[in-house]
Amino acid sequence: MTTKITLSKRAQGLTSSAIREILKVTERPEVISFAGGLPSPTTFPIERIRWACTKVLDEAPQASLQYGPTEGYKPLREWVAARLSRNGASIRPSQVLITTGSQQALDLLGKVLIDEGSKVLVETPSYLGALQAFSLFQPAYSSMKTDEEGIVTDALTPEQLAGARFMYCLPNFQNPTGRRMPLERRKALLEKAIAAGVPVVEDDPYGALSYSGEELPSLLSMAPEQVIYMGSFSKVLVPGLRLGYVVAPEELLGKLVQAKQAADLHTPSFTQRVVHEAIQDDFLDHHIPGIRTLYAHQCELMLAALDRYFPATARWTRPHGGMFIWVTLPEGVDSAALLAKAIEQNVAFVPGAPFYANDPQSNTLRLSFVTVPADKIDSGMQVLGKLLKAEIEAQGAIAA
Amino acid sequence: MTTKITLSKRAQGLTSSAIREILKVTERPEVISFAGGLPSPTTFPIERIRWACTKVLDEAPQASLQYGPTEGYKPLREWVAARLSRNGASIRPSQVLITTGSQQALDLLGKVLIDEGSKVLVETPSYLGALQAFSLFQPAYSSMKTDEEGIVTDALTPEQLAGARFMYCLPNFQNPTGRRMPLERRKALLEKAIAAGVPVVEDDPYGALSYSGEELPSLLSMAPEQVIYMGSFSKVLVPGLRLGYVVAPEELLGKLVQAKQAADLHTPSFTQRVVHEAIQDDFLDHHIPGIRTLYAHQCELMLAALDRYFPATARWTRPHGGMFIWVTLPEGVDSAALLAKAIEQNVAFVPGAPFYANDPQSNTLRLSFVTVPADKIDSGMQVLGKLLKAEIEAQGAIAA
Repeated sequence: MTTKITLSKRAQGLTSSAIREILKVTERPEVISFAGGLPSPTTFPIERIRWACTKVLDEAPQASLQYGPTEGYKPLREWVAARLSRNGASIRPSQVLITTGSQQALDLLGKVLIDEGSKVLVETPSYLGALQAFSLFQPAYSSMKTDEEGIVTDALTPEQLAGARFMYCLPNFQNPTGRRMPLERRKALLEKAIAAGVPVVEDDPYGALSYSGEELPSLLSMAPEQVIYMGSFSKVLVPGLRLGYVVAPEELLGKLVQAKQAADLHTPSFTQRVVHEAIQDDFLDHHIPGIRTLYAHQCELMLAALDRYFPATARWTRPHGGMFIWVTLPEGVDSAALLAKAIEQNVAFVPGAPFYANDPQSNTLRLSFVTVPADKIDSGMQVLGKLLKAEIEAQGAIAA
Repeated sequence: MTTKITLSKRAQGLTSSAIREILKVTERPEVISFAGGLPSPTTFPIERIRWACTKVLDEAPQASLQYGPTEGYKPLREWVAARLSRNGASIRPSQVLITTGSQQALDLLGKVLIDEGSKVLVETPSYLGALQAFSLFQPAYSSMKTDEEGIVTDALTPEQLAGARFMYCLPNFQNPTGRRMPLERRKALLEKAIAAGVPVVEDDPYGALSYSGEELPSLLSMAPEQVIYMGSFSKVLVPGLRLGYVVAPEELLGKLVQAKQAADLHTPSFTQRVVHEAIQDDFLDHHIPGIRTLYAHQCELMLAALDRYFPATARWTRPHGGMFIWVTLPEGVDSAALLAKAIEQNVAFVPGAPFYANDPQSNTLRLSFVTVPADKIDSGMQVLGKLLKAEIEAQGAIAA
């Protein structure tokens, strides 16, 4: 441009997601990538989607290709409300907004709830995509202390909670750590949030992916007036249709609908109807167990490889669901430097630092065990283990 | 909520689109609605879309249902770049970002270019959806003077241009007025924008819908370094797949890509591939003439009905393309009050006031002639004409 473009302050702070940049490298077929959170494509119910496309185009050809309401396709909103009401909670369709992937719900929540400098509570570490979405609205993050059971509710003080616009958490098989909050912690978290008057944003893309099949009550079901809930079809059906939803008390939902109207008018009518057809007749209840079995198996393979190849000075989570393992390397080992060496040997993962809202820990990393086929997990982990041991030895040599 | 939710300042200013609220009323089948900008569903190439869905699921079942790059499906970006380069301009695929409808491009541009209080130049009146999207980022609008040929370039002073983040315009069959800027005006507009160093955002959903088939050069083709261009498949193929694109110099595009990553990761892989298949073999060049013929005919019917039923004291535009006619009622007649009466008689339109960024003119309204079948245009307009004449008489009686 001859013209100097003046960027907004928020855009000046934009940086590309480390994950996305790495994914570009890992598109090369020879790369064994533990980086992306891409569901295994072998789980995609292609015939079901094909059947649903045909049905929608046969039965509602014009309506499925026309503009639709911002709130979403009514029968799909009704399905979501009924699904979330299965365990005794009472969610109304009027509380449901269909979004273009659950990532969009993060953007809408940021728009509607965050002013520059607003306090927002997040886990340590937290989902990178949420930090990216919220950061555009320039909040002041306050990181909540966590351990292997998620948020340490005893450490949440009234001072930390005071004046927060909301608390953001993933109670089920969190991205990036894979950990799940036990029921007692959930109760304690809600008690503190209610006492402080802080709304809780519950992001739940992985809840159905419990390997044992046992699901814990959602925060939404425990305190429907306190919780803004986000769900997704990406991890239980397919991600490429970009379909998610957000559930909120009607008054807030109205604002989210208005923000969505400005953001993209509505989520594609066609994809909403296709997914609605695909999930009829309890399809997900038949489909999800296969995903769980596959992921449980691959998780086991990766944990075995970690035991086999990683030094005892490293620690890692042992998830009971979801898609990720979180590794903490010995103090002083930089996972970004390790990644550079790993990519030279065609193995990739995501360094942990970008998942921290405050005080990034550079000796952490995230491994996904669902995208790479089972037979490549061991060889990829062997490469990583060797590189890590060499790194530790080199550091020891420097220190000595 | 037990909890008092604190909304962001931008959310406090949110109001629902007048159009969307009216559309809810007009969903009743008995309503003759000239309100929505919904393309005629009779133009939807349903068989072509069906064929494209089958082809995509046969040839790329996993890739079309998997996550994809934020920038969009590469062959579709290449198609857009080639299409926009047909008239001699040279647009690179790396300048193209695929968006979830072109509405999303408005949101991304607002995010990346507008700070609170930033000057943004808009037409008088302008597209309501753009005002909604930009307003979330709290700009200070400066309205550019217009006449029947669009922006009055002679009235654009260096003072008005100075410091503007960008100028937003729809040179082709503008929403809401239906007017098109002649070539001389386009040249003058670009000269002034270049001299002042103000980027021009060219929103072009209707450019291909010229009834004569004659298209004027886009601002993008005339000054590719100065212009950010937005296009859409909604008006030339189908709107229900929500597919649009934005073209910008690479440096700005990178920022838009980062903002999109945070907004929805990427536009659905599946819809991108379906549209890409559907438009192969110059499909649009064969398909669009049918849309033009239909819309030209319906425009003619509505203009004839206006001549027949509306009082001589009202004025209206006579579009040569697109979907809308803009009506200016006699001074003092409030189109919102007229709408309330019209809805009682099952006829709808959109009052003009929300299309103004500054100084709303309440005696204006927008008519769409493309959604309602031809045989209902005359009867709907007859109702409106009668109501309007009664309104004018009543006012005269009060004045007398």
